Amino acid sequence: MASTSQAGYTQPGIPRGTRDFGPTQMAQRTYVLEVIRKYFTRFGFQQLETPAMENLAVLTGKYGEEGDRLIYKILNSGNFLDGVNYAELAINPPALAAQICDRALRYDLTVPFARYIAMNAGKLTFPFRRYQMQPVWRADRPQKGRYREFWQCDADIIGTESLICEGELVSLLWQAFSELGLSGIEIRVNSRKLLSAMAERLEGGADGQNRLQDFTQAIDKLDKIGREGVEKELRERGFSDSTITGMGPLFESQEKKATGYDALPGILRWLSGTAGVLSENGKLAEKELLEVAHYAQTLGVPSNALVFVPTLARGLSYYTGCIFEVVTLETEMGSISGGGRYDNLTGIFGLEGMSGVGVSFGIDRICDVLETLNRYPATLKATSTTILLHALDGDGLNVAVNQLAMLRHNHIAAEIYPEPGKPKRALSYADKLGIGFVGLFGSEEIAKESLSIKDMVAGTQELVPFADVAAFIKEKVRL
Amino acid sequence: MASTSQAGYTQPGIPRGTRDFGPTQMAQRTYVLEVIRKYFTRFGFQQLETPAMENLAVLTGKYGEEGDRLIYKILNSGNFLDGVNYAELAINPPALAAQICDRALRYDLTVPFARYIAMNAGKLTFPFRRYQMQPVWRADRPQKGRYREFWQCDADIIGTESLICEGELVSLLWQAFSELGLSGIEIRVNSRKLLSAMAERLEGGADGQNRLQDFTQAIDKLDKIGREGVEKELRERGFSDSTITGMGPLFESQEKKATGYDALPGILRWLSGTAGVLSENGKLAEKELLEVAHYAQTLGVPSNALVFVPTLARGLSYYTGCIFEVVTLETEMGSISGGGRYDNLTGIFGLEGMSGVGVSFGIDRICDVLETLNRYPATLKATSTTILLHALDGDGLNVAVNQLAMLRHNHIAAEIYPEPGKPKRALSYADKLGIGFVGLFGSEEIAKESLSIKDMVAGTQELVPFADVAAFIKEKVRL
Repeated sequence: MASTSQAGYTQPGIPRGTRDFGPTQMAQRTYVLEVIRKYFTRFGFQQLETPAMENLAVLTGKYGEEGDRLIYKILNSGNFLDGVNYAELAINPPALAAQICDRALRYDLTVPFARYIAMNAGKLTFPFRRYQMQPVWRADRPQKGRYREFWQCDADIIGTESLICEGELVSLLWQAFSELGLSGIEIRVNSRKLLSAMAERLEGGADGQNRLQDFTQAIDKLDKIGREGVEKELRERGFSDSTITGMGPLFESQEKKATGYDALPGILRWLSGTAGVLSENGKLAEKELLEVAHYAQTLGVPSNALVFVPTLARGLSYYTGCIFEVVTLETEMGSISGGGRYDNLTGIFGLEGMSGVGVSFGIDRICDVLETLNRYPATLKATSTTILLHALDGDGLNVAVNQLAMLRHNHIAAEIYPEPGKPKRALSYADKLGIGFVGLFGSEEIAKESLSIKDMVAGTQELVPFADVAAFIKEKVRL
Repeated sequence: MASTSQAGYTQPGIPRGTRDFGPTQMAQRTYVLEVIRKYFTRFGFQQLETPAMENLAVLTGKYGEEGDRLIYKILNSGNFLDGVNYAELAINPPALAAQICDRALRYDLTVPFARYIAMNAGKLTFPFRRYQMQPVWRADRPQKGRYREFWQCDADIIGTESLICEGELVSLLWQAFSELGLSGIEIRVNSRKLLSAMAERLEGGADGQNRLQDFTQAIDKLDKIGREGVEKELRERGFSDSTITGMGPLFESQEKKATGYDALPGILRWLSGTAGVLSENGKLAEKELLEVAHYAQTLGVPSNALVFVPTLARGLSYYTGCIFEVVTLETEMGSISGGGRYDNLTGIFGLEGMSGVGVSFGIDRICDVLETLNRYPATLKATSTTILLHALDGDGLNVAVNQLAMLRHNHIAAEIYPEPGKPKRALSYADKLGIGFVGLFGSEEIAKESLSIKDMVAGTQELVPFADVAAFIKEKVRL
């Protein structure tokens, strides 16, 4: 934590888990955001922004107990203790927090989106295709790929049950990641209805919805704790030994590292049992998964990029249909995108019957992956300046400022080194920032109404008449 | 405040002073931000982003007592009361707040910028031209043009004392506002050194720096409380009657509504007194003001757009040279931009001797002004979609999805109405969103391998072969 030192100044620092993004990093982040935005708009998504602060009650209880603890709460202004029985509440910090904090920082973009839909349903045209690119905050323990401030980029289509939407989102993921140089991704897909069909077959554990929860929470950990770990956890959650033994085909399909939809027939056979009959949920899941793959392929997604993973569960409880997760196979990073269909997300805000489907790009992890794989375009630069002007003496200054105006008027990004003098410092400045050209004004140049333009890459220098400078630069950089 | 209702769902709402920005407003805000960004980059500014959360100690004491109260503090996670003597501190909420909140929300972009410079000075190339476009938060009373979450767009040049920089920033303001259709602005300029020269002439009040503070804080209110109000306040702050009477020329120059630099000679005469000698501060101020006007004009700013206003003071205490404020004369809105030169902003973080100058665009007020004056471009739309495809029956669906992929592959923003059927709903959807073209697929169209394209503005309909659809649309919208 920053503090005022004895020298009387404030020690500068930033909170753990947050970052400053200097010009080079901003060029990289902007590149990623703009590629994604390009596909969002090409796919007809409309932009929404919601406030960083939400009413605490809007967020509480939407992300599970763990989530509630990770929400950043904002202290009420003024006499925040007025009317609070703090002595009694001191033994119960969460209860006190809710009394002294009416607002909190956005935890994701999905709940604010649902809140917005519930508040504005009457004014909106459905199906509503919205995108949103904003930071979110979580009081999580910082570690690799996990920050306390990070950006989400979400695209959702709400107000239709059509599976074309799932296909479109898979196509969106594929196109955006391909353009980012990450075609080595796997878009993993499963259906919550298939998980329900599995849970229906299981003996032991709790009934109905709770059994599904217990089951999905256990198999969701397969990547982390392995088959034995999941079997142990299922046993602890009360599932019978015969159930666990019977789950062999599920684990085996995973161990085989099936590609595309190769694992689907085996899983459907397993779920059909000895009677050879698929349950209602099983049938719906099969239809969903096949239709989504069909639309995705029609939209140009290679069939091996979309992989059916029967153990994919995703933590969030609001998903009801297809669920997605994107991983890169080129480096260890966990998921870099995810999403799914929800049938009643806005129900928590009193608006029932709004089915939707969405995906979220994890910008910070994507940036980390591009950095690790050294896959940012080489053209990204901290500055957009094309030419730096420099006056060798005071007389050159006015002429330089004049030419500066002329260049900018011609839409050429230009700046002037603000202090006239020997060129050494100006050239070093241009070199460090990667500025391609330096224009020098001395008495000789002024007498000839010309500018000495140094090409910083080629190392050459040419005398160019003032009237030709803009055309000369445009030609050089093909503006 | 939102709360969980008896029906079991959360009442949706947003905190007072914050806003959701739906697609139409986002199109407007993006337009404003991108115009400003265009000039930021054309002028060679490099982008910086800092975290929304700063350590509380970084912000405390930097904005005056009033500012400290308006900073949003973030409650520490977990057992935030551990080690806090809350019973004793209950009588002193600010002291308790500092114990249970280590972090706070960014209040402006200037202090985080100074903090960043102090932390990264060794790695940066100076002069450093940085721009930053991010929201800030203040627990202010919401009213017209004042929000609790609002965006600032700042451009600063730090590490040089050259007055070319002031000239460049005036040119930046002029060019950006002109392109936004707000050439009816007045860029007001004064110099803190001129205010010092004035304060030196005054009798009464406190000594030195405090006298300057008292004086500037009083005349800063001239617009709000008028000449009599300021005279009363000066008297209350201990200035002598003869001083106040002697300030006639200052008030009179304002009452005359001088244009350009018309008021400067009179003020300089007044400050030179009967002896006809200008103080050191007076001389420096004169030089500053004249040089800035010279550079601004060389850079193309009309001389009547830059107005010398001797009573312009600006609240913030860190300014040391020229100060700026932009007002529009076309509607009542207060200042829509402001800035100035600071000689030691980073000194509070232990880095001395870094002179800089910057301006800040108040995006939310600029948007309010454009809205009031109805001056947004008519072309701004909520959606970027050029064509909506619609299948009249299930058979058309696959063909439609195929054509959808083709259009997007041709960089045409396209979407499909996800449910096949009679065209009424799809046409109404396109109409409401302002989508220019609707492509219909029925059995007739499929048989002819063509698409019926309806021009929603002209009301015409044409049958276009699949192979020509992309070229047809590009021709129509001149892509």
